[in-house]
Amino acid sequence: MSSTQQVHITRYKSGQSFGTNDLLTVEEPLEIGIRYGMSLLHKSLSVSMRTPGHDDELGLGFLFSEGIISHKDQVIGTVQEAPDCMTFLLHEDVAFDPTDFERHVYAASGCGICGKSSLAAVRQPVAVSDFNAPSWSIEAKLLTRFPEILSENQTDFATTGGLHAAALLEPDGRLAIVREDIGRHNAVDKLIGYALTNNLLPLSSKILLLSGRAGFELIQKAAMAGISFVAAVGAPSSMAVTLAQEQHMTLVGFLRNERFNVYSGNERILYL
Amino acid sequence: MSSTQQVHITRYKSGQSFGTNDLLTVEEPLEIGIRYGMSLLHKSLSVSMRTPGHDDELGLGFLFSEGIISHKDQVIGTVQEAPDCMTFLLHEDVAFDPTDFERHVYAASGCGICGKSSLAAVRQPVAVSDFNAPSWSIEAKLLTRFPEILSENQTDFATTGGLHAAALLEPDGRLAIVREDIGRHNAVDKLIGYALTNNLLPLSSKILLLSGRAGFELIQKAAMAGISFVAAVGAPSSMAVTLAQEQHMTLVGFLRNERFNVYSGNERILYL
Repeated sequence: MSSTQQVHITRYKSGQSFGTNDLLTVEEPLEIGIRYGMSLLHKSLSVSMRTPGHDDELGLGFLFSEGIISHKDQVIGTVQEAPDCMTFLLHEDVAFDPTDFERHVYAASGCGICGKSSLAAVRQPVAVSDFNAPSWSIEAKLLTRFPEILSENQTDFATTGGLHAAALLEPDGRLAIVREDIGRHNAVDKLIGYALTNNLLPLSSKILLLSGRAGFELIQKAAMAGISFVAAVGAPSSMAVTLAQEQHMTLVGFLRNERFNVYSGNERILYL
Repeated sequence: MSSTQQVHITRYKSGQSFGTNDLLTVEEPLEIGIRYGMSLLHKSLSVSMRTPGHDDELGLGFLFSEGIISHKDQVIGTVQEAPDCMTFLLHEDVAFDPTDFERHVYAASGCGICGKSSLAAVRQPVAVSDFNAPSWSIEAKLLTRFPEILSENQTDFATTGGLHAAALLEPDGRLAIVREDIGRHNAVDKLIGYALTNNLLPLSSKILLLSGRAGFELIQKAAMAGISFVAAVGAPSSMAVTLAQEQHMTLVGFLRNERFNVYSGNERILYL
């Protein structure tokens, strides 16, 4: 399935209208489900709008960042039950509690259902430990070049203008991998799924670069994958900053036009 | 609760780093729940990250755009069960089926669960009829001024750079209402909740202006509210275009720098 689609449009420009062709970002629903336990019970976990491509990575990354699996060997197979429906068969040893999962997704938040605070309810336990000691750093001037490195590699965005990108870079500026999606959380899940598949977790020596804003859920996913440095071209949110600080994660925002703001973990940046 | 929060950051600019203050967009979880039926059963419908403010509109707009209520009188009260948890008491005559709702949110999509196609599964029945006859139109040149009209009224974005805005405008360019949120779907739900509260539905004679991209879910919400003209500063997705065409809705994208693209419903635009 292609990630772009051509349509005929009317364009208005310089006071004139004319017919022309345009490329759209494809957006299609994907259901992610699992079969789990001895009797391979089916459970639908999510239906989200995504840009087709790397669906296996998307599903694996979602399962990992939701805390359902911690290792790729816990998935023993996948079944494409329909074109837009992907089911992951979990190893029978994986403990999955559908009630816990639904409580996490839907619910709780201090209504007396679970007694936790809202923040606790949306927050996952973060799997990867020891963010305390920054064992590497990056030079400020090099960091300002990251958006340019990303845009050189973000092919579909250039043609549609409609995609979010997430990329992993080495501290020396080499691009390791980039994924694009109409949903920013999907782009990050695809990256994490890629890393899981290729035994690259935890990603403690990589920088996660986001083409847009850095919201709480993206920082949570990054923390789950052991990422200790997130740089976003857009703005971070208040809860993203709070979580990054708690995790001793470096969080950079508004990384563009040779500028940036550091919201957390300034010690991983070298100002020469 | 404020929608912005001040933090101390390190800024890098022109090769120098220095400490300064910055304003963040506040992002906090909100649970939307209902109590329904004779015995006022509680059902948690959604936990989403939102920017505090206009929470009642957000909840009402969500209930309306999800097809749970069709009139404001179907909500007989609200209970703030916790700071981030809002419960709407539905009139006992409102038919709510939790199984249907979960199937819609989570599930289906051709896995044999319901036999529907994916698209049908994510798609709501659209409540408002007769989009067929465009009874009004707008001049192209006036349309190009809409982003400027919006940014003059988008106060929090100017200070944080981190918010999506949704606005309703009259075809003569007057701004009726603007709402901002860290989530673009929340901004639209807040607008719809406002319109519901003020007996303005269906919004067939208004233009919905979006500060970002136009995805499928936003077009669906617009259609539920009877909106026949959506203009987005960003790109539309493939499924957004498909749905707009089916609904005979005008969909404009990339509305910026005195240009725009028309993806559907060009007959509502006058090129003089």
